[in-house]
Amino acid sequence: MMKPLSAKTAAELDASLMSTLGYTLEQLMELAGLSVAQSIYKEYNPINYPNATIICGPGNNGGDGLVAARHLKLFGYEKINVIYPIKGKNPFYDKLITQLKMFNIEVNDKLNNEILNNSNLIIDSMFGFSFHPPLRDPFDSILSTIIKSKNENNDRKIIAVDIPSGWDVDDGPIKDSITENYMPDMLISLTAPKPCSLKISPITNHYLGGRFISKNIADKWGFEVPNYKGVDQCIKLN
Amino acid sequence: MMKPLSAKTAAELDASLMSTLGYTLEQLMELAGLSVAQSIYKEYNPINYPNATIICGPGNNGGDGLVAARHLKLFGYEKINVIYPIKGKNPFYDKLITQLKMFNIEVNDKLNNEILNNSNLIIDSMFGFSFHPPLRDPFDSILSTIIKSKNENNDRKIIAVDIPSGWDVDDGPIKDSITENYMPDMLISLTAPKPCSLKISPITNHYLGGRFISKNIADKWGFEVPNYKGVDQCIKLN
Repeated sequence: MMKPLSAKTAAELDASLMSTLGYTLEQLMELAGLSVAQSIYKEYNPINYPNATIICGPGNNGGDGLVAARHLKLFGYEKINVIYPIKGKNPFYDKLITQLKMFNIEVNDKLNNEILNNSNLIIDSMFGFSFHPPLRDPFDSILSTIIKSKNENNDRKIIAVDIPSGWDVDDGPIKDSITENYMPDMLISLTAPKPCSLKISPITNHYLGGRFISKNIADKWGFEVPNYKGVDQCIKLN
Repeated sequence: MMKPLSAKTAAELDASLMSTLGYTLEQLMELAGLSVAQSIYKEYNPINYPNATIICGPGNNGGDGLVAARHLKLFGYEKINVIYPIKGKNPFYDKLITQLKMFNIEVNDKLNNEILNNSNLIIDSMFGFSFHPPLRDPFDSILSTIIKSKNENNDRKIIAVDIPSGWDVDDGPIKDSITENYMPDMLISLTAPKPCSLKISPITNHYLGGRFISKNIADKWGFEVPNYKGVDQCIKLN
């Protein structure tokens, strides 16, 4: 089991990556989103799971989802729908949306039932390591709808990016009527697992992505870089 | 054989990618550099070819090399040396150099013989599709040194990124005392092969990278997107 990175440390590391360590947000988001798409491809291939809906929040977790949407389409998924209820403030997100047009990926602000019923995969890219519960409108009702649709059709898979949205980053599921019933089929941790990842079900597929940190830096920050294979941008942890 | 993209069309497409199509330079360079590193890994693995020297020019081709250097280190190559004789004007290149520090990748402005003699791989990331011959100081003498070192040790492999530096992008090798003897062991075309790629030797390994364009856009610009496998960021063309 890998040592988890707390919400506080993850935020500090993120700031350090984009200051002294020299990365730009555009680079990190591209690599993170690519690793999300690769993880999904490895677990749920486009032949058996051709249609995916990605719910993107207004922050960086949502940005990772916007990048992943493009790569999933490039990897051969048939239909990708992006649900983007609240526009993020960073102008780079507008560019990420523009990039989707080339691939005929539809972007909507509301999740409608037709899209949901046709989705084999639902990707929760709403909130990441800087989230504090509870989920607010409209994301609370979106999560509720997703969970209901999963209960109606267990072949539909829910994939959470970094954090199952609504969970506390350090403590895991919280006691409220929506999130206490939320358990994704797959969790893709980015950079390092967060403490809440210890609370996933034994049958949740757990991946790690975000291959951009040296072992030296990971040592310094008290976490581990896993032994990625070859050129893989992700690794299955369980 | 894939339809090549002329110097003129490649420049126009590049401008379009970073305007109407919405990409940022940081994203495209990250994906291009990653595909360069993946191509190299597939052809010359880090067990048999542990040490690589990357010669980076002052433009975007050099930037692709700076990104590739980092990914090669992440893929397990033992010693990566970057030679960066003339600093590029774009401040993003300074960030790419900063990113190398985390991985203890040495950056020098001169190619010394000790580094060269210890290199299994020499990566020519000097000039790309906007280059016009002839090669100027200090790149002419660097290329001359590289070719000499290859003649002394044929196990040393020379890898060109997009264009073998010094060649004319549309016409291939030119008649001058240095470049007329230059034939890389491997060429990694980016986005689409350029016309000069038709002049490579039958034993030059030819790869394509830069997986970020839809088939629609490629059609519109008169070139093809190859059938990349799975999540691969590169494909071998011969």
